[in-house]
Amino acid sequence: MRVALLAGGTGGAKLADGFARVLAPGELSVIVNVADDTELHGLRVSPDIDSVLYTLAGLLDRTTGWGVAGDTRTALGMLERLGAERTWFQIGDADLATHVRRTQLIRDGASLTDATAAMAAALGITARILPASDDRLRTMLQTDAGELDFQDYFVGHRQEPEVRGVRLDGLDAARPTPAALAALAEADLVVIGPSNPVVSIGPILALSGMREAVAASGAMAVSPIVAGRALKGPADRMLASLGEEVTAVGVARRYAGIVRAFVLDAADAALASEVAALGLEPRVLPTVMRSDADRDALATALIQGGGILNR
Amino acid sequence: MRVALLAGGTGGAKLADGFARVLAPGELSVIVNVADDTELHGLRVSPDIDSVLYTLAGLLDRTTGWGVAGDTRTALGMLERLGAERTWFQIGDADLATHVRRTQLIRDGASLTDATAAMAAALGITARILPASDDRLRTMLQTDAGELDFQDYFVGHRQEPEVRGVRLDGLDAARPTPAALAALAEADLVVIGPSNPVVSIGPILALSGMREAVAASGAMAVSPIVAGRALKGPADRMLASLGEEVTAVGVARRYAGIVRAFVLDAADAALASEVAALGLEPRVLPTVMRSDADRDALATALIQGGGILNR
Repeated sequence: MRVALLAGGTGGAKLADGFARVLAPGELSVIVNVADDTELHGLRVSPDIDSVLYTLAGLLDRTTGWGVAGDTRTALGMLERLGAERTWFQIGDADLATHVRRTQLIRDGASLTDATAAMAAALGITARILPASDDRLRTMLQTDAGELDFQDYFVGHRQEPEVRGVRLDGLDAARPTPAALAALAEADLVVIGPSNPVVSIGPILALSGMREAVAASGAMAVSPIVAGRALKGPADRMLASLGEEVTAVGVARRYAGIVRAFVLDAADAALASEVAALGLEPRVLPTVMRSDADRDALATALIQGGGILNR
Repeated sequence: MRVALLAGGTGGAKLADGFARVLAPGELSVIVNVADDTELHGLRVSPDIDSVLYTLAGLLDRTTGWGVAGDTRTALGMLERLGAERTWFQIGDADLATHVRRTQLIRDGASLTDATAAMAAALGITARILPASDDRLRTMLQTDAGELDFQDYFVGHRQEPEVRGVRLDGLDAARPTPAALAALAEADLVVIGPSNPVVSIGPILALSGMREAVAASGAMAVSPIVAGRALKGPADRMLASLGEEVTAVGVARRYAGIVRAFVLDAADAALASEVAALGLEPRVLPTVMRSDADRDALATALIQGGGILNR
């Protein structure tokens, strides 16, 4: 049972963890957003890949939802003393090691895909973690505070400015990786994880040929909006300020024509008919992942076909 | 009173600290060995420059004599988990930040001299810390365990192999910096600090034109060997395995023709006539720096002309 999961760093990473546990080694491929990537202190930082790496390696700080559990901040203090810029990005020491290692591998000639595979293997991860692209792609947000790159908005401005538009810098030249496209083509099940549809899934689907590859796979998507709110992060406020409906239906509308089925949380079961009206098969499942058991249960339910409405 | 001090990372750094306190801001230039530099995890590491930076900033771990006091080792553990090489080099987290910042500045176009100046300024250091060269120069040691680069010998092999020869890789192309040569030309007093004569001072003096510039300055040198032993590090064993005399006189012999005066520790006062026989003016001073007061006293004595025998 080969599964390909499109993911950002939060809900998608949790679902990846569930799939990784319920599938056999090597059966899971996680296609990860790279448009949040940035350069910090001359190092290549890939926050969504790191969140998936840390989650699957059991290292993620579950209190904050990002970074390494128990990490220290010694280097950050020294970087501040040394006059480094962008120290509002609160890199922990273990996290800094990740960025150093990735940067080294890439400077030595590895693609981001190769570097990620080497790091995942070193951490004992058997799932394939596949950057959506090895090319430069950056989410730029038009906000009330001007155009900001994603990390400047997300961390530097604490998601406070309203987002009025999204531009993907580098999109014309960026291509999905052959490995990501192959994972979609070979998968028995393709799932769009419950990640931010605007800035996590959007940049993956925007890559040339990716939308078609997902559509051809008969994919299903899991709503990151439950009862009109994002479980984590600014997806709800972004949808609102972009003029979209802040419900699971609003998300489903984004995925109409791309996925075959759309998974609503049980709290949103009443929206199933609206999802069906968009031409998507609605599925209703408990999607909120508070525990490992929740992750495993959702992964298992998706593998088994997606909930009560299609039985 | 402008002073130029040639230094490695240990005794030379301590003496730099004394000079920095007893001189006015800007009067001290420290010309630092760069032949111990290495690449670790894709980062530029300059151990002697760092020891001088940390010492002058009051950050040095005085227990170990290197690194930052109170530093953590979180990143190192993560680098090991990620499969990084050469993790026997026990980089602390604050130390890693130093290497990251230097590497960033150099990749952004700064010379090592410029990067060092920026970092020193950020740390509030008013002395000028001048790499002996901005070019690549690496001490390679012929040992019983084969040819090793300096850090591989010093850290990786814990200075255990016997050193049979020294080769300076890159010496043909490396040049002293204009700033280092200017500091020598402008100094009222030039001092070769009590650093390892083979691997700390040797690579500075080996740079084209440096020996002549030091000789023209009427310099004095401070012996790093006291009572037949190195105060710290492998200088004594190196001198022995290279077939040289393991006394202050053995060091003086290396500096004959380069310095005018040679400072012996009070414990070695009996060797003054042997130093004089080499054509060097002997000076006898307490040179062992256990406390800040010792550092200041030695710096003051050197400024005042160097001890009892020349009064």
